[in-house]
Amino acid sequence: MKTLSENVSFGGVQGVHSHASTACNCDMTFGLYLPPEAQSGPVPLLWFLSGLTCTHENAMTKAGAQAFASEVGVAVVFPDTSPRGDGVPDADDFAMGQGAGFYVDATKGKWAKHFKMWSYVTDELPALLAENFPLDMDRQAITGHSMGGHGALTIAMNLPDRFRSVSAFAPMANTLDSDWGKPQLTAYLGEDREKRRKHDASVLVEERGFRGPMLIDQGTDDQFLDLLKPEALASAIARRRQPATFRMQKGYDHSYFFVSSFIDDHMALHAEALWA
Amino acid sequence: MKTLSENVSFGGVQGVHSHASTACNCDMTFGLYLPPEAQSGPVPLLWFLSGLTCTHENAMTKAGAQAFASEVGVAVVFPDTSPRGDGVPDADDFAMGQGAGFYVDATKGKWAKHFKMWSYVTDELPALLAENFPLDMDRQAITGHSMGGHGALTIAMNLPDRFRSVSAFAPMANTLDSDWGKPQLTAYLGEDREKRRKHDASVLVEERGFRGPMLIDQGTDDQFLDLLKPEALASAIARRRQPATFRMQKGYDHSYFFVSSFIDDHMALHAEALWA
Repeated sequence: MKTLSENVSFGGVQGVHSHASTACNCDMTFGLYLPPEAQSGPVPLLWFLSGLTCTHENAMTKAGAQAFASEVGVAVVFPDTSPRGDGVPDADDFAMGQGAGFYVDATKGKWAKHFKMWSYVTDELPALLAENFPLDMDRQAITGHSMGGHGALTIAMNLPDRFRSVSAFAPMANTLDSDWGKPQLTAYLGEDREKRRKHDASVLVEERGFRGPMLIDQGTDDQFLDLLKPEALASAIARRRQPATFRMQKGYDHSYFFVSSFIDDHMALHAEALWA
Repeated sequence: MKTLSENVSFGGVQGVHSHASTACNCDMTFGLYLPPEAQSGPVPLLWFLSGLTCTHENAMTKAGAQAFASEVGVAVVFPDTSPRGDGVPDADDFAMGQGAGFYVDATKGKWAKHFKMWSYVTDELPALLAENFPLDMDRQAITGHSMGGHGALTIAMNLPDRFRSVSAFAPMANTLDSDWGKPQLTAYLGEDREKRRKHDASVLVEERGFRGPMLIDQGTDDQFLDLLKPEALASAIARRRQPATFRMQKGYDHSYFFVSSFIDDHMALHAEALWA
């Protein structure tokens, strides 16, 4: 592991690190914010999964998570959204290939060699973090934006004992039946719809649910609402009787201006669950 | 109008009043809480519509609205849920007849003479209140529980200029397609589905929406969830892009223990809208 940069932020340290990834067969970069409390012992960890086209950097610089994270003593990790590099396949469509890993382990065609973001985020990166940083891995929570909201929700519900709380900003909520999800996951995982069900947040809410608190924020003026399909998730939450808060936030769009406006509410939810 | 009782409550006055109702062709009773501020001038008004079997008294004594209402200087009116009395028709089913007015103007059969709760709550009672109490009728908001949540949502969306904010606790959310709604509204209004559409909260959210803030709370352990159909409302909110907060509250049932646990959040929403 190599540390690329460190900046003091709200009394803690915002680091950027890279390492050779076995899962993705390439070098991977991630951001990790450590609050001041990390100097005196392990702290809980919040995952922030980012959306299409993002690297490790977007949420780290634009979501505004560090202020509250510092206050409540929680670390935040910002993984990249796909494998990267000259040897890694890509696509002309920004919603496929580099910057669009969709948090799955690809098994099909040219994608299979590198696009293992599921294993990377749920297995390899957690192990690396646990080994190298003062983190209490028994206290984890997860959030994300857009494709990262899809990642946060699907990972949380597939690994029910790992995360104490889950939240999402404008998540891709119904990947089985959206042009954001169906073509990409079909390319990565194949035509078999059954294999894609575990990567659909609305299906998972209805079939499995989540044991801890759940918070979903969605802007009413989001330019991608037809692709995100929040109605599938809202309906599934109600049908499942899933404890959750689902908010349609008036006037907000899909940008980080939306995310940063509500990040404190999400941090508060996670901090309460993590320190309980 | 006759004042039946007055009790000092949080520095204000909880009154109970009765009057001969032209709309309902019988005497009607309502509760009205006036905060301390009402002694020095008109105050905004929040409507609390109650559920099946309730009179004016249930929410007035069990919802716990007075504390916050006193603090923020808002009056709260608690109407009855149907016409009452020996001359008023009833049914063996607690979900029909007395205590089950469903906030509509019945046009069919034996119900047509008395069951005019729509006119009573939207026309006759507001006029009576405006004439007799220090209320600023330009500042009104509305909430309700169960059948009253249905009433609050449907009235707010049908009268888009009257209420600044709307909220509901465990509302009957889809009366067109539930055994709480379909049989009763069919008896009151007839078989014509078109005439019942304006009394379905989910249909109204999707077709009209609401201009102000909206808050819905629903307990996950509500014994009547299959009849309330919150999934129709949650889905409609998302599809309409209706600014709203929809919360599934873990472990709560259908009782006033649920209502009173969250009444302050609802009062805060309404107070902010009413005093804006």
